[in-house]
Amino acid sequence: MIVDQAVDVPSGLPATVPTPAPGDPRLARLSLNQRTTASWSLREAIDGAVAAGLNAIGLWREPVGEVGLDTARSWVADAGLRVSSLCRGGFFTVSDPVERAAALSSNRAAIDEAAALEASTLVLVPGGLPAGDKDLAGARSRAVDAIAELVPYAQERGVRLGIEPMNPIYAADRGVVSTLAQALDIGEQFPSDAVGVVVDTFHLWWEPGVTEQIRRAADRIVSYQVCDWITPLPVDTLLARGMMGDGHINFPELTSAVAAAGYHGDVEVEIFNADVWAAPPDQVVATMARRYVELVEPYL
Amino acid sequence: MIVDQAVDVPSGLPATVPTPAPGDPRLARLSLNQRTTASWSLREAIDGAVAAGLNAIGLWREPVGEVGLDTARSWVADAGLRVSSLCRGGFFTVSDPVERAAALSSNRAAIDEAAALEASTLVLVPGGLPAGDKDLAGARSRAVDAIAELVPYAQERGVRLGIEPMNPIYAADRGVVSTLAQALDIGEQFPSDAVGVVVDTFHLWWEPGVTEQIRRAADRIVSYQVCDWITPLPVDTLLARGMMGDGHINFPELTSAVAAAGYHGDVEVEIFNADVWAAPPDQVVATMARRYVELVEPYL
Repeated sequence: MIVDQAVDVPSGLPATVPTPAPGDPRLARLSLNQRTTASWSLREAIDGAVAAGLNAIGLWREPVGEVGLDTARSWVADAGLRVSSLCRGGFFTVSDPVERAAALSSNRAAIDEAAALEASTLVLVPGGLPAGDKDLAGARSRAVDAIAELVPYAQERGVRLGIEPMNPIYAADRGVVSTLAQALDIGEQFPSDAVGVVVDTFHLWWEPGVTEQIRRAADRIVSYQVCDWITPLPVDTLLARGMMGDGHINFPELTSAVAAAGYHGDVEVEIFNADVWAAPPDQVVATMARRYVELVEPYL
Repeated sequence: MIVDQAVDVPSGLPATVPTPAPGDPRLARLSLNQRTTASWSLREAIDGAVAAGLNAIGLWREPVGEVGLDTARSWVADAGLRVSSLCRGGFFTVSDPVERAAALSSNRAAIDEAAALEASTLVLVPGGLPAGDKDLAGARSRAVDAIAELVPYAQERGVRLGIEPMNPIYAADRGVVSTLAQALDIGEQFPSDAVGVVVDTFHLWWEPGVTEQIRRAADRIVSYQVCDWITPLPVDTLLARGMMGDGHINFPELTSAVAAAGYHGDVEVEIFNADVWAAPPDQVVATMARRYVELVEPYL
């Protein structure tokens, strides 16, 4: 591809580096989280990842369920892709006993699916405060209890649970685990082959001492996810993530820390953003590959 | 006031407690930050605070500057109000030498104004990342350096600087100090009569271990500011604060911790919110007084 013909999305700016071609060794660890190309079906996302020369994909339970677990598994296997993560388990901060039992049941199903897909981890998004409940410590405690309950089930199936600390912007409604330090305080209560942590730049870039916490995490890092923090923050905070390089995050620094911690897994790009979703998905993948080889891969 | 005739703003729901009347001892420590009633001039805010029976007001430099420091000082003194805080100093994370000198000069002027107004503290909003700069650690380091440079000037004038840790939602563009723990790590490098911390519920409610950090803060707490974290987050994140009780924050828990830490100062209500600003200011003050005596004051 000729550099000056490629355009980055969603910025619309000319690409500053050539798009790495399939077979480029720099793409070896890049994974497309399928929500980055939300308009693509699972089949299209698999095909798109392969066409771009990727070797891994991050899957979500809902689109997997739509085609059926067996079909998804065979599609991914036939395409030669690794499943870098399955999103998501969690949402187990509910206090109502019936809702809690349902949440645990759903998480066991997610563990089964992660095992079938040979996913590197099942991402756990802890969940927020129940409606009307202001006991944040209680919700956090219930998240720990739920993980404790799920660990034996996950271990039996060889699935590593990945606690995802989330930017405090989501503490009320999605994720009560707010820092990598806190996620490690929880994770370290369990064997490292059973419970790890997800390092997501969007969630953690601001955390004081985050590079020390990444070092502490060491082999508990089960997933490294990259996207940017952009300002002004988009209207819908759930869609606030930006393409790497479009915002304020220092990817070389965080990536170097993750590499120094000994992480050897895939690097997933997970971007929820209306402008990214409105762009042609193949251009999203091409931009993501360019930004990755520029800002992330050299520091792995 | 008859309870069932009062309506809370901006929720529009019936008030659940009577509005405390002027002279009610429960109002003794309640302070109106003038930005909560943004449509009021300084004169109107002073009159509105007095009419509601308040004894303190939190001021901003710009409206003070509009009427002149001497006028503002005499208005506040004649009204018998304490100045619970002056907003704001800070924005000293700039790296350009000329901009840095200007920022320090502006902060010295703010210290002079805080001294003249006998403000309990000058609130320091550290500032964000310079444009295009992704070195968060560097920006944080420059904030510490600036405080170190300002401390002697503040001490000579009897002004306590109040570092305000800000919700990470603002880490990129307004406040690189993101947790109370981090603010204390900075503050403790200086004498406690010179540098303290602002405990603002909106910024800190999610922080893991925040009650322990409040205990650690002890006599460094120079201001306690209350407003709520509401979801969905309003479109403009700068205007994302809610009236106490309308969101997810546990005011009894945080207030009890602040009281146990030994804080005896005023409790300021600072709400940036378009719906609050669109409501009649006297109704805002009445709602704020009701919510305060219900959710905050009993725990002081």
